[in-house]
Amino acid sequence: MRVALGISYIGTTYKGWQSQPNVLTIQDKLESALADFTQTTISTLCAGRTDAGVHALMQVVHFDTQVDRKIISWVRGINSYLPKDIAVQWARIVPPEFHCRACALTRRYVYVVLESVVRPSIEARRVGWVYQALDEARMKSAAEKLIGEHDFSSFRAAECQALTPVKTMKRIEITCRGEPLQRYWRFEFEANAFLHHMIRNIMGCLLMVGDGRRSPDWILEVLARKDRDYAAPTFSPDGLYFLGPTYAPEWDIPQRTAGFNWLP
Amino acid sequence: MRVALGISYIGTTYKGWQSQPNVLTIQDKLESALADFTQTTISTLCAGRTDAGVHALMQVVHFDTQVDRKIISWVRGINSYLPKDIAVQWARIVPPEFHCRACALTRRYVYVVLESVVRPSIEARRVGWVYQALDEARMKSAAEKLIGEHDFSSFRAAECQALTPVKTMKRIEITCRGEPLQRYWRFEFEANAFLHHMIRNIMGCLLMVGDGRRSPDWILEVLARKDRDYAAPTFSPDGLYFLGPTYAPEWDIPQRTAGFNWLP
Repeated sequence: MRVALGISYIGTTYKGWQSQPNVLTIQDKLESALADFTQTTISTLCAGRTDAGVHALMQVVHFDTQVDRKIISWVRGINSYLPKDIAVQWARIVPPEFHCRACALTRRYVYVVLESVVRPSIEARRVGWVYQALDEARMKSAAEKLIGEHDFSSFRAAECQALTPVKTMKRIEITCRGEPLQRYWRFEFEANAFLHHMIRNIMGCLLMVGDGRRSPDWILEVLARKDRDYAAPTFSPDGLYFLGPTYAPEWDIPQRTAGFNWLP
Repeated sequence: MRVALGISYIGTTYKGWQSQPNVLTIQDKLESALADFTQTTISTLCAGRTDAGVHALMQVVHFDTQVDRKIISWVRGINSYLPKDIAVQWARIVPPEFHCRACALTRRYVYVVLESVVRPSIEARRVGWVYQALDEARMKSAAEKLIGEHDFSSFRAAECQALTPVKTMKRIEITCRGEPLQRYWRFEFEANAFLHHMIRNIMGCLLMVGDGRRSPDWILEVLARKDRDYAAPTFSPDGLYFLGPTYAPEWDIPQRTAGFNWLP
């Protein structure tokens, strides 16, 4: 039997999703909770390997198991063994052909930036921070130039293991709420897939355009160079959230994402 | 010279505002940052002593000092010595007659509750949690009965040091956002002052009315008993935020509160 799970987490205290020797990862915590709950060894695959410090509203994983449990028991049972900053949001029995990574049509991420003279405290580790006013039109103009199929090598970390640097950016939506120097920016990205550090590197560039250090056209130059050295420094992971993969409707995977807009 | 500060913090890792022997408090962190920044010893007073695990969007403190700094230097200088979960939001030079506690007309708090089958992860330690649907009309009816001047002894912790249990509740506003079993409740309280654990004890009662375990009229009985044993268990501190004191406009104290509504 194949089971899919939707999982939300705050990534701050973990070295990313993927299990690695000698460090604490979210996959380790999940597989350890699965072992405690089922008393069997279960290996999981995920739809999007988030980086150290990056959060997720809906990571999707799948695994195969002989263990038969009610749907709500999968959710509550696993959660009872997970730390407070990780929670299973839903479970589904899926056909054996479903593969959380291979079936994903696109991935969606959001980056939240606080624009304020004062650094965050309530939202520390949960938003990026800039202390200068950003220009919406300039950033939108730069972002538009990244839409479509491109070689994103300039935005790719040296450690990236992707087979190809060519990805298709479907959408970059930039919105903001509040007054200048006291507002929140939301950058939503959708692509077929992302390279390692790609969003944080794009964010670094968009913010340099937004605060006037670079022109919107500079992003074309960065893209054309296909060289990481030409892009801005990698922006902080603090404000980055994996919103989840999208699937064809026939898989019937919930679109529900956990907790947002909860603040007074 | 008297200086007032507006301070925001996540209280999760602290034993409340007030300095106490052998534990870590927010006042300790602030006074240690003030000592590092000014190279003098500074004692502070606050407008509302928050409890262990309780957060603040705008705690107000004042202190007297010979040290002369620009306003923005007070903010940035102190923040550079504070941990990530505490930040000064603004500073003001105030007249010597200003007293952050004595001049406060009212205090405002908000309690945020997640109503969901699944426990919080993204918002862990930042919201309270109930897994049953709450009834808005029932809770509003119960809350109304607490408005006005009452002896709140039934909602008072044993350790409470207030001179009198009689307080005036000005306002309890209950709102919610989302669908049943997937929504956030916001309970906003305003009173001249609050007893120790008063809001968390009221929240415990309102939730017992909201989920059907008690009738709205039961709250009148609890109030009339003037005995802590008749009220519900103290609800978690996780979702409680001090929104700040209110002052007469002539003091010119900023109403600005830090970071909220930042989530996608």
